[in-house]
Amino acid sequence: MPPLTQPVPAAEERSHEILASIRQAFAEKGFDGASMQDLARAAGMSVGNFYRYFPSKAAIVQAMCGYDLAEIQGEFAEIQTSDRPMACLRERILNQFSEDSQKDGQLWAEITAAAIRKPEIGEAARQMEETIVSLLTAIFAQATGRPVAEARLRYEGQCQMLVMLVKAMATRTAQCGPASPALAAQVVAVIDRILTEISNDKAEG
Amino acid sequence: MPPLTQPVPAAEERSHEILASIRQAFAEKGFDGASMQDLARAAGMSVGNFYRYFPSKAAIVQAMCGYDLAEIQGEFAEIQTSDRPMACLRERILNQFSEDSQKDGQLWAEITAAAIRKPEIGEAARQMEETIVSLLTAIFAQATGRPVAEARLRYEGQCQMLVMLVKAMATRTAQCGPASPALAAQVVAVIDRILTEISNDKAEG
Repeated sequence: MPPLTQPVPAAEERSHEILASIRQAFAEKGFDGASMQDLARAAGMSVGNFYRYFPSKAAIVQAMCGYDLAEIQGEFAEIQTSDRPMACLRERILNQFSEDSQKDGQLWAEITAAAIRKPEIGEAARQMEETIVSLLTAIFAQATGRPVAEARLRYEGQCQMLVMLVKAMATRTAQCGPASPALAAQVVAVIDRILTEISNDKAEG
Repeated sequence: MPPLTQPVPAAEERSHEILASIRQAFAEKGFDGASMQDLARAAGMSVGNFYRYFPSKAAIVQAMCGYDLAEIQGEFAEIQTSDRPMACLRERILNQFSEDSQKDGQLWAEITAAAIRKPEIGEAARQMEETIVSLLTAIFAQATGRPVAEARLRYEGQCQMLVMLVKAMATRTAQCGPASPALAAQVVAVIDRILTEISNDKAEG
């Protein structure tokens, strides 16, 4: 399935390129360790020009969260229009545990630490989790034939648990390498239990 | 039950005092954000004297992990000698989710991010997880009447899952505040399922 693509304005596209080029430097040196000079250098730009795109590290994190979220929204749009949304969701969640997620885990560990210290970063991270919970809720509402508001109350804990598990696994993989098969089996069992429970919780009538 | 206390040499006691006084500064400013000068100031010491106790930030993290681990080992010793070790273990795990754990979560988020970037910190964090897994294994071996080596293989995934969940909840609490009752219920259900499964997995004969 091709990813959802939308035409983006030139400035936004340039921001996206810059973010991609500094992602590695940001993750490797850490939120405080990477100076704006380091980041400008990684982007191959003068510091002055770099500041025009991103006036602060918080602005960088907010933009990164925004782009990641756009990607996640595209994935959820595909899930929702697939033949079997719950099976498709399961597959996407398990894909998150592949080796690719290692770099994301490093970045997430940095953002998490910074989010606790800096309110503006905390806000960006909270909005991201909140949006993912809403996207999950929409899938669960569809799968159970329940109104979104009802699904939101009913599956809040399950949605938060799924987000926490995916994040914990990404961070752990970045720190310790791929999970043991035994740990992976435990995580998959929890996810399957949650998804099965919701699939079987159809609204009456 | 009184905590296990052992007489400690004076220098070690002084190190412990220093660590307690800088813990907050370390968590608040971040691993890279807190300079050795900041930390010496928080401990009320000259930089030169501070360096004599802790020559590097890695040495601080290693010492913090060491002290935390000594505390955890004391708790596990109490669990193992209690009347109902599995019930006692459950209670201690759930206690981790109380408001006290918020500060630990902030420190853990910092250590996790630093552990991915700096091998010597990664090593200290890995040893800590490894030791906790061994302590859990010992309880599970006792509860099931299985040899420790067998319990280690058999319950590896469960032990790693428990450690990951406790860490993820502590980090999340530091970032987002106390978990919703719905999320807490999900986490408790996973822990109870793991502990019940192991309790029922007694060796034959």
